[in-house]
Amino acid sequence: VRIVVDAMGGDFAPQAAVEGAVAAARDFGHGIILVGREDDIRRELSLYDPDGLDMNVVHAPDVIEMDELAPAAAVRSTPDSSVSRGMSLVRDGTANAFVTVGHTGAGLAGAMFRLGRIHGVRRPALATPFPTLRGPCVMVDIGANTDVRPEHLLQFAIMGASYAELVLGITRPRVGLVSNGEERGKGTSDVKEAVPLLESSGLNYVGNVEGHDIPLGNVDVAVLDGFTGNVLIKFAEGAGSLVGRLLRDAATGDPVATVGGLLMRGSLARMRERMDYRAYGGAVLLGVRGVVIIGHGRSDAEGVKTAVRVAARAVQADLVGTIAAGIARAPGLGAGPIQ
Amino acid sequence: VRIVVDAMGGDFAPQAAVEGAVAAARDFGHGIILVGREDDIRRELSLYDPDGLDMNVVHAPDVIEMDELAPAAAVRSTPDSSVSRGMSLVRDGTANAFVTVGHTGAGLAGAMFRLGRIHGVRRPALATPFPTLRGPCVMVDIGANTDVRPEHLLQFAIMGASYAELVLGITRPRVGLVSNGEERGKGTSDVKEAVPLLESSGLNYVGNVEGHDIPLGNVDVAVLDGFTGNVLIKFAEGAGSLVGRLLRDAATGDPVATVGGLLMRGSLARMRERMDYRAYGGAVLLGVRGVVIIGHGRSDAEGVKTAVRVAARAVQADLVGTIAAGIARAPGLGAGPIQ
Repeated sequence: VRIVVDAMGGDFAPQAAVEGAVAAARDFGHGIILVGREDDIRRELSLYDPDGLDMNVVHAPDVIEMDELAPAAAVRSTPDSSVSRGMSLVRDGTANAFVTVGHTGAGLAGAMFRLGRIHGVRRPALATPFPTLRGPCVMVDIGANTDVRPEHLLQFAIMGASYAELVLGITRPRVGLVSNGEERGKGTSDVKEAVPLLESSGLNYVGNVEGHDIPLGNVDVAVLDGFTGNVLIKFAEGAGSLVGRLLRDAATGDPVATVGGLLMRGSLARMRERMDYRAYGGAVLLGVRGVVIIGHGRSDAEGVKTAVRVAARAVQADLVGTIAAGIARAPGLGAGPIQ
Repeated sequence: VRIVVDAMGGDFAPQAAVEGAVAAARDFGHGIILVGREDDIRRELSLYDPDGLDMNVVHAPDVIEMDELAPAAAVRSTPDSSVSRGMSLVRDGTANAFVTVGHTGAGLAGAMFRLGRIHGVRRPALATPFPTLRGPCVMVDIGANTDVRPEHLLQFAIMGASYAELVLGITRPRVGLVSNGEERGKGTSDVKEAVPLLESSGLNYVGNVEGHDIPLGNVDVAVLDGFTGNVLIKFAEGAGSLVGRLLRDAATGDPVATVGGLLMRGSLARMRERMDYRAYGGAVLLGVRGVVIIGHGRSDAEGVKTAVRVAARAVQADLVGTIAAGIARAPGLGAGPIQ
């Protein structure tokens, strides 16, 4: 397995990306191609001992900044950016997967332009494993598609289930359609129309689920439009910060609590770890012709290393081929015009 | 102020409703009308000492159960239900507000049928204060309207801001439109079209906000369609259960942590209290001709008492009149056909 790592993406580029890539090459034995400004990458690489590792550097002089407001236009106009160059390496077969902790929109646009969609996929979707009471739940879509149609929701379900099964190792994942009520008649018109499609999909569809079913772990795949999914995942992130802050307050509120907080420190750290969705390597873009992992911009080297591990597993399990087969099997959903 | 309390609503009816109503009458001096099965109510009342309190009982033999799947039809077909009778008491001026911790859909339907909409309001909306890092944020709509149009979002903002100002005491509340990005160009087509309406509304509109801005307290009013709002509030509820469970695990994981957990107990209880959205009395239905509070079905007597307090404040501050004036002032949004 050979994996492209975008050296210029993320809040701590190129340090975190290079350090994480070196660690992945060393610990997992994967081939790594670092793409970005060669001088910056070589300077960073010199801090480690990459001898004997299967690592290459591909120069890409342009950088798409984390605060770029028009990422699609930026990707189009910079064929020499790390994103464009890196995706091209996957397209031409030099590498099997692309990993970035950079701009989500740029990763999305780069994948669409350079890799293209899997035959039959109407809309690629962003998925992320979310930690719950009973293991991770794949939330899909978390932001690639703002306005969706029922057939898109079906495809999100097929792709999300493939990811849950192949990458997270969940056998016959329980798929739920997120709605504002469990009853069949609840939901937007698109959600209601998606229900019969899911029922006849052959997936392990468990019906409409509500917001609380996600953190409680009642489904393995939670299907959402990208607007709701994006609001939800960001809400969860903010709520996580809030809980962290409240716990710090609670552990320093008075002298007794402070002692208690010290004694609970290890235990609370383990709890935080268990709930850290970055432990899963970040979001994956499903439905394009290649494995694309887009980790959180704040990822450290450990986060990048995890993203590489997830990417390699997706390649080895043939996630792309499995999605293609699943989409081809879905009734009445062959390749259609771009919608 | 005279407030109708639905004695038959909620998981602990009639006990919680009656006990809470008695406490509210005693501690706040409000007039209370308990509506429901008279025998049940009188039996429950006999456990307390209601002498000298301004309390009345109105008999309503029918009950709409918490698991009713077709609440609108149930309300229509049972003019003798506690919901229908109670709403009628508000409509005819006998009382000023209706409080229930029963079926949300039944409360909504009863208010629509019996009270009707405020002149100019296209769609009444459910709002709830949500605890954040910096005080409560009013989330509106959390489930009354699944499919909404831009002008509905504007009305939700106007109504939510009135509630934040009059009931929560927030001067010139910061209003944010929840979207999948802060930029103007982000969002569903309805969200994008709502932006100019909000910009020219005269409200303290701070722009598009993202999911994390709610728990972080960056807005006082978060405007959402009822589908997204419902998924979000239920997700938050599930996440709250998850955190509670994880904290219990963390406080019992090993002997050291167990001692720590005991020492932190008071501090953690205060944290839970600070985050308990039931402390705000539950959801309020905005846009109908009367004050309607719909508390959580699991509310205990304290929850009912709080809901009565909130209802009374809304009456005293003339929430309904203020919303009517705000809607009338909004440009191009006079009374229209029901949409």
